[in-house]
Amino acid sequence: MAEPDDNPPMQGFNAALGIQLLKVEAGEVSAQLEVGPHHHQPWGIVHGGVYCSIIETVCSVGAQVTLTPGSGFIVGVDNHTSFLKATRSGTLRTVARPLAVGGRTQLWEANIENEQGELVATGRVRLMVVPAGKTLAGEPAGVK
Amino acid sequence: MAEPDDNPPMQGFNAALGIQLLKVEAGEVSAQLEVGPHHHQPWGIVHGGVYCSIIETVCSVGAQVTLTPGSGFIVGVDNHTSFLKATRSGTLRTVARPLAVGGRTQLWEANIENEQGELVATGRVRLMVVPAGKTLAGEPAGVK
Amino acid sequence: MAEPDDNPPMQGFNAALGIQLLKVEAGEVSAQLEVGPHHHQPWGIVHGGVYCSIIETVCSVGAQVTLTPGSGFIVGVDNHTSFLKATRSGTLRTVARPLAVGGRTQLWEANIENEQGELVATGRVRLMVVPAGKTLAGEPAGVK
Amino acid sequence: MAEPDDNPPMQGFNAALGIQLLKVEAGEVSAQLEVGPHHHQPWGIVHGGVYCSIIETVCSVGAQVTLTPGSGFIVGVDNHTSFLKATRSGTLRTVARPLAVGGRTQLWEANIENEQGELVATGRVRLMVVPAGKTLAGEPAGVK
Repeated sequence: MAEPDDNPPMQGFNAALGIQLLKVEAGEVSAQLEVGPHHHQPWGIVHGGVYCSIIETVCSVGAQVTLTPGSGFIVGVDNHTSFLKATRSGTLRTVARPLAVGGRTQLWEANIENEQGELVATGRVRLMVVPAGKTLAGEPAGVK
Repeated sequence: MAEPDDNPPMQGFNAALGIQLLKVEAGEVSAQLEVGPHHHQPWGIVHGGVYCSIIETVCSVGAQVTLTPGSGFIVGVDNHTSFLKATRSGTLRTVARPLAVGGRTQLWEANIENEQGELVATGRVRLMVVPAGKTLAGEPAGVK
Repeated sequence: MAEPDDNPPMQGFNAALGIQLLKVEAGEVSAQLEVGPHHHQPWGIVHGGVYCSIIETVCSVGAQVTLTPGSGFIVGVDNHTSFLKATRSGTLRTVARPLAVGGRTQLWEANIENEQGELVATGRVRLMVVPAGKTLAGEPAGVK
Repeated sequence: MAEPDDNPPMQGFNAALGIQLLKVEAGEVSAQLEVGPHHHQPWGIVHGGVYCSIIETVCSVGAQVTLTPGSGFIVGVDNHTSFLKATRSGTLRTVARPLAVGGRTQLWEANIENEQGELVATGRVRLMVVPAGKTLAGEPAGVK
């Protein structure tokens, strides 16, 4: 199994979730997450929001690094995630790739597999390019 | 602003997120979440996965309590959430109601507002009824 | 029941479908469609694509007339439609309103009801603003 | 290019659209459609509802033939289609395959390409299994 590479440590919600980025390149991002009790919904299986969140992260990171440098920053606008197989434990592996890359919008897809290589969730994220220099929620956009 | 009622404390991922249920009734569920740095993505705004997760929780809880008691349990199968307004802080309020309630499937919608009453995210969750007695991820279904 | 107003007759796919626009204003569009055998799938109920198509039309028309005149033209990028109640005949009425209107993207929602006022389908369309002067599929954009 | 096989001629909305099924097997369905002016929206490009409709048809047909014979019939409940590239003319080819096949629900994905092999639209359809013997819109279910 691949080891997390030397990508910067995750912060904020990504740190709380425990997502580890494995690969970050234009056109492909992969990540892993070790399932624990803090990912469960009341039936003791992984909460659907965990899958949505992983997918949101990898697609957003992927769209940002795929964007022409300096042209702006990426914000997700729609996340559509489907849950295929209930999971209680183990390591989840996710790979994200773009379906369409344009100057104003990108569409990315991510697939999450369990340790047996079974597809447990899959989703698509629509992302918009916000041109450089625009503000975001009242502040200059950028890493905080 | 309404205070959280005496619903049972959230556990697992719901506790990690900090969701507080305000109202749980057949046909309507509401909840609130106080935004903190652990909800942020790298630009310092609420991570899209947080909105998806809140929506997944309130729609699932709502579908479960709307189901005829004893007839089975609810699992979400698709979550489609749209992000309308970037948010940095404050209390988010969510209300969920059903669009369709059947014996095999339900469709719920949830809307998340900021403290100014602006819609910041909205989503729909498709849920399936798993008949009583069926297993879930290899174990009898039920609260763990 | 409202009568179709004096909006221009529908052409192309909208004419083939038989959609009649009832109201076209910034912030609200309504339409009707008389169900016939040419809308059926093999079980003799309205084909899901008919609902998607109605929703695509009313949301796109609505987003276009809501856009600041001269600022560009609208193209839909994602359509997410849910089917709630099987229908065999009668007149379907649809109302569309925006959930978010921005300079680069809009999100619209449309609800389709049968003659009994029951919700039979509901959907959301994500739309992008293409700035004036850009080409579309190799030609200057505009009504053909 | 493959020729339409000897599948039964399409009726109702499928005939109106002009969809030709090329292959119908458990686990894979393909189809083609020759674009004409009756598929256009006002800008002279293929209407988004046409893509949704093709995807609805191939996924529904696929789910039905993948279902254990005699166990029931398939109805679509959600269709989520993304539009990637505007198209004016030519033959569109579509292939659909399942992402998940269960006894109560299936999830299918379909991709539509133009004559250059470019992906122009892609979508996913959530389908439910209605057990044999149940009625549909007030009538026994089955081909009409």
